[in-house]
Amino acid sequence: MPPFDLPEGDPFGPHNLPYGVFSPAGSDQRTVGIRLGDHVLDAGAAAEALGSPYVSLLAHPTLNPLLAAGHTAWSDVRRALTAWVTVPSHQETITPYFHPLSSVTLHLPFEVADYVDFYASENHARNVGRIFRPDAPDSLTPNWKHLPIGYHGRSGTIVVSGTEVVRPSGQRKSPADPAPVFGPSVRLDIEAEVGFVVGTPSTMGEPVALADFREHVFGLCLLNDWSARDIQAWEYVPLGPFLGKSFATSVSAWITPLDALEDSRVAPPERTHNLLPYLDDSTEEPGGYDLRITVAINGHTVSEPPFSTMYWTAAQQLAQMTANGASLRTGDLYGSGTVSGPTERERGSLLELTWNGRDPLELPDGKRTFLEDGDVVTLSAWAPGADGTRVGLGEVTGRIVARD
Amino acid sequence: MPPFDLPEGDPFGPHNLPYGVFSPAGSDQRTVGIRLGDHVLDAGAAAEALGSPYVSLLAHPTLNPLLAAGHTAWSDVRRALTAWVTVPSHQETITPYFHPLSSVTLHLPFEVADYVDFYASENHARNVGRIFRPDAPDSLTPNWKHLPIGYHGRSGTIVVSGTEVVRPSGQRKSPADPAPVFGPSVRLDIEAEVGFVVGTPSTMGEPVALADFREHVFGLCLLNDWSARDIQAWEYVPLGPFLGKSFATSVSAWITPLDALEDSRVAPPERTHNLLPYLDDSTEEPGGYDLRITVAINGHTVSEPPFSTMYWTAAQQLAQMTANGASLRTGDLYGSGTVSGPTERERGSLLELTWNGRDPLELPDGKRTFLEDGDVVTLSAWAPGADGTRVGLGEVTGRIVARD
Repeated sequence: MPPFDLPEGDPFGPHNLPYGVFSPAGSDQRTVGIRLGDHVLDAGAAAEALGSPYVSLLAHPTLNPLLAAGHTAWSDVRRALTAWVTVPSHQETITPYFHPLSSVTLHLPFEVADYVDFYASENHARNVGRIFRPDAPDSLTPNWKHLPIGYHGRSGTIVVSGTEVVRPSGQRKSPADPAPVFGPSVRLDIEAEVGFVVGTPSTMGEPVALADFREHVFGLCLLNDWSARDIQAWEYVPLGPFLGKSFATSVSAWITPLDALEDSRVAPPERTHNLLPYLDDSTEEPGGYDLRITVAINGHTVSEPPFSTMYWTAAQQLAQMTANGASLRTGDLYGSGTVSGPTERERGSLLELTWNGRDPLELPDGKRTFLEDGDVVTLSAWAPGADGTRVGLGEVTGRIVARD
Repeated sequence: MPPFDLPEGDPFGPHNLPYGVFSPAGSDQRTVGIRLGDHVLDAGAAAEALGSPYVSLLAHPTLNPLLAAGHTAWSDVRRALTAWVTVPSHQETITPYFHPLSSVTLHLPFEVADYVDFYASENHARNVGRIFRPDAPDSLTPNWKHLPIGYHGRSGTIVVSGTEVVRPSGQRKSPADPAPVFGPSVRLDIEAEVGFVVGTPSTMGEPVALADFREHVFGLCLLNDWSARDIQAWEYVPLGPFLGKSFATSVSAWITPLDALEDSRVAPPERTHNLLPYLDDSTEEPGGYDLRITVAINGHTVSEPPFSTMYWTAAQQLAQMTANGASLRTGDLYGSGTVSGPTERERGSLLELTWNGRDPLELPDGKRTFLEDGDVVTLSAWAPGADGTRVGLGEVTGRIVARD
């Protein structure tokens, strides 16, 4: 049967089963879908047909009820889904509820509560430091090795993969200009990131320990933190990035549950500084994930950032975010920060790839320093699974358009 | 009749009518309430009793449906409410739906979407510059007079007046320390601010013009942006405030509709720099509000910040926030930034009032540099109304408690 008859090594096989929200062709009804190969299963309808109790978690227009159900429920549902797509009698029952992926509309899969963005790649932070503070004795700020630096971003402009991104306007001022000018950004960039989706909330006033990461975080997605470097440079002192980022943040349509990534867990890079106890993960299970990201512009690969090189882990970021007692809500999303590896072809932003425009990229359709109108940026990724399999992440793509 | 028989000059008379959400004594059902003097009207029940069509906007556990209804609906509902509380036949009908204010529980009145905090007081920004950058040639950063500086804060930890605030822990490092230490903040501060509540959403990619402020913003509240100065100082370079702020932000339980503040509109301070067109309010209606704020610690007044001195107006902040095409959602909240007047007794933070701890305040119960456990901070305010009346704003209060 087509949905189950997958090519050898399909990265979206029964070992993966990411979650999304879709509308079938000709409908604007949203419901939770599970991706299997190039098909999408209407999970609520399948649960209903099978008489599964998980109808109550799956027959919804967002993933939020499932996210809120907690870790035990996530594991139980995943076990059930795995049986549905692998046991022949179940397969037969659910076959009518598959839709070809190409026929459906994919939506933002959950209601985003708070959005935080981190800055956890040492390579990225050092590159940025070298570009903007070439005379500083250290390319990292003094706090960088002591805590994962982060800031809040705008939840209301998080959009699903495929959404067009209108080139933002804003103030910019180069040092030589006597006064700022206003207009469309001329240094529009990407940041290749991984986003972590919080399911289980926490109580205000009570920090979340490193070891409780898996109790709170449901899964991950790819995230493109579009960045207008010229707007950002003029606005960000002293309160940080604002309009240079808030116009749009794109996420993949598929949320990969952490349970599908057990075999891709790796130890983070060796720590060069002693960490305070709430961040000290030396006795924890490996907190890194070996995600292999690809950045493509107009279909041409420009970089392959390795997520395994991130200095700060997602568990440390969660512990940091709540160390002051700030509470978590279902639907909170946090970005890893730009993923940049140690080599030139592993950098996760055009800022770094072109060294702030000094070294343009040579693409088949011409040179690029920053993004031009019409450019399509696509992030994709996979992670090693058990026995040589690959676990595919949903891609995140977006096309830059000029404002009308 | 008690609810209508108000003392002469009551700042919560029929000229005010702020909106909140309450539960009556002995119930945990939330519903929209209107404050009249020391009573709260169950607005949905009153609408029902009167056969008013506004039941559909008022009989809800949050203000969000009313906020989403738009400016024309806001004015229509306000006109109706005014008639209900002033026309004798209506008064008689709605009398059973009043509750003594002291008997009800007040809740966060709306679901907060995105939260942004600005930095719009020139006196505050100059004080901060003088305290932290005493050797800089100008106490303002170069961008300050060209755009209202802002950043995103945490929506999920916005709490209603009366909620206890747990003293946050975090990393701090004084320049002399060899490494950061972790523990409860020892420089816990307040920021006296005004919060603006967005009702009507906007479209992504389309900036909101200065002149459309009243179409989008429903009303205002008092806001205390609790700030851990020691955590903030160590974390905030280069991405801005994060854990130093995200543990709690308190707002008043009552949202004052802008329509109640028509007589308190004033011109902002004279602009010292030419503004780019999207921020140039020289030909707009007066964008300032003459709100007289009082800051009290344990019942003792320590400051009276005048909101009329704010350099950037709420309309300019809205235009700035959307200049890059970022969209607004119903329930977005933005803070004005700390309100500080030109004199010592008009400063809106302990940082400024004690000049970073150098000049302690003398309170009846002892000296204060920053907040101690058990301290209760209360912001209150009023604005001039028509014919010498006063329009009262709901107070925002909070008590500092140590973590268990």
